[in-house]
Amino acid sequence: VPNAEDELIRRIRRRVPSARGGGLHVGIGDDAAVIRPRQGNEWVLTCDQFLEGVHFLRDVYPPDAVGYKALARATSDIGAMGARPRFFLLSLCLPEKLAGSWLDGMANGMARAARQYGLTLAGGDTARSAPPNPCVGLDLTVLGETRIGRAVGRTGARSGDALFVSGTLGASQLGLELIRQGLSRKKRWRKLLQPHFYPKIATELGRWLAERQLVSAMMDISDGLSTDLYRLCAASRGGARIYEDRLPSVAVSSDLAAAGLDARSLALHGGEDYGLLFAVRKRHIPVIPKVFRGHRITRIGEIVAGSEVTVVARGKSSSLAPLGWDHFRKSN
Amino acid sequence: VPNAEDELIRRIRRRVPSARGGGLHVGIGDDAAVIRPRQGNEWVLTCDQFLEGVHFLRDVYPPDAVGYKALARATSDIGAMGARPRFFLLSLCLPEKLAGSWLDGMANGMARAARQYGLTLAGGDTARSAPPNPCVGLDLTVLGETRIGRAVGRTGARSGDALFVSGTLGASQLGLELIRQGLSRKKRWRKLLQPHFYPKIATELGRWLAERQLVSAMMDISDGLSTDLYRLCAASRGGARIYEDRLPSVAVSSDLAAAGLDARSLALHGGEDYGLLFAVRKRHIPVIPKVFRGHRITRIGEIVAGSEVTVVARGKSSSLAPLGWDHFRKSN
Repeated sequence: VPNAEDELIRRIRRRVPSARGGGLHVGIGDDAAVIRPRQGNEWVLTCDQFLEGVHFLRDVYPPDAVGYKALARATSDIGAMGARPRFFLLSLCLPEKLAGSWLDGMANGMARAARQYGLTLAGGDTARSAPPNPCVGLDLTVLGETRIGRAVGRTGARSGDALFVSGTLGASQLGLELIRQGLSRKKRWRKLLQPHFYPKIATELGRWLAERQLVSAMMDISDGLSTDLYRLCAASRGGARIYEDRLPSVAVSSDLAAAGLDARSLALHGGEDYGLLFAVRKRHIPVIPKVFRGHRITRIGEIVAGSEVTVVARGKSSSLAPLGWDHFRKSN
Repeated sequence: VPNAEDELIRRIRRRVPSARGGGLHVGIGDDAAVIRPRQGNEWVLTCDQFLEGVHFLRDVYPPDAVGYKALARATSDIGAMGARPRFFLLSLCLPEKLAGSWLDGMANGMARAARQYGLTLAGGDTARSAPPNPCVGLDLTVLGETRIGRAVGRTGARSGDALFVSGTLGASQLGLELIRQGLSRKKRWRKLLQPHFYPKIATELGRWLAERQLVSAMMDISDGLSTDLYRLCAASRGGARIYEDRLPSVAVSSDLAAAGLDARSLALHGGEDYGLLFAVRKRHIPVIPKVFRGHRITRIGEIVAGSEVTVVARGKSSSLAPLGWDHFRKSN
């Protein structure tokens, strides 16, 4: 077919897993995808934008990081419900000049995330972005599958539940700050950018916790611990107390601290780590491991009565403001 | 929760239907939506972008037309598979200054389409669009439901099948040409813009045809008859012959014809009508009605052997080039 849009879709398909099977009855190439659930299962569904100038800077991000991170961060919400990632749709808006090697690099990164998390591309949409300021935009819709009734929401935490997080807090934000301060191209800091470019999401941990019914509420930390803990508490109609010295904060070397980077602030408010935040009834606490397939698990506090979120540091308790990411906050 | 993004989501929810029930087990407000299929049914899934400067001009489109059309055009793909529209996700990228009354108007139009086509908002994502040129972007993911095996793809047409279209061809493109020529604000032409702003999609016709198994292949005409017929033929590995004098072309008045508008060209290549294009085995032809719930149905030709698409006019047959919409064509 002599159609440039169809050709672009073929470029993506050659790289990203998109074969039928495993419940995908009709895939790319028709008006819509057709998926058949397994009996006794239900679908978990989310979408997530990854936009140039908003979520990433194209002159800083390697193309494969754009593809990897766009899919990983959307899939994170599926893991946070305790579901198994299955299929995804890609809406892609692209300047014409990026439809060649940049697109191939992006698709390679997306393919790596798809294989890592068990995802098949089932469909999507493409558009050429508009002048005068053509930007890349990706929107990922991800479907997961879970046994009926096993999906874990945010509403089930109760006073007395222990609060856990997985992974390191503030590692992605540290990478972002290095970019903002123009330090990202220095070789000595390059390794610190990896958690920002290629976040490792805890999908298998989420499934494991949900299948064993060990958690009363769970979500991923995408906008920062302070903001997301506030959301979990609001949904569960409770408050929380966390302990600053227990937080698995990112390590900040003395020269970066001198440049104004603060481990406490990064850990409390830094976004895009995509670790899991979850609440556990007292009787299940001993079952929670310290490490799960490379993801460190840390008990950081507990759910309390009321609606306040407080942080305890050096024996003093103070209110924790939700100062994580907020797209529509005036001062952003 | 003192969070501007959460407040924006509440503004949308107050307008657009988003209640749980009917298979939606977890809706907006968690990491992801949870949906339970009815036994014996499967899901049909599509996504579609509607971007300022690419798909619409904000200074021309009423806000409610943006919301209405964005959802209607995405839902069109569900109807074209013969499925019943059920749920949708909205990814919204918005300049901050539009988060007030413009957003409300957009959401009202989207709500109207949702009610008209039986859709419930199940989730989404919001972002503030980036300076220096902040644009509105919407991406709609729509889920439909159908009985297992009843979804209609593009691959089943065979030589000898009759070809039908629903609706009028070129009506949306006529509206777009009026906008391009600066005529859209003149009162006498205003009515001609309605098919461009508020396309009526033929979802119920698609379901009716699919449930009765009357069609061998079906798709919606979104990029223009010439381009989409070419796609249907390629998917079904056949050719097609259509008759120019049978096309249900939009009426073009003499003064608009004098301004260079051509009914034939609009009908063959004009996009965004969202009528259905479908193939019917000979034995089912008598069952196809002339009108279905206000949608005119017209037999325009037939599937033939080979791979060529031809159009017959005044007894002469000529090859039909796919000159409809192509986002990545160099000359667009």
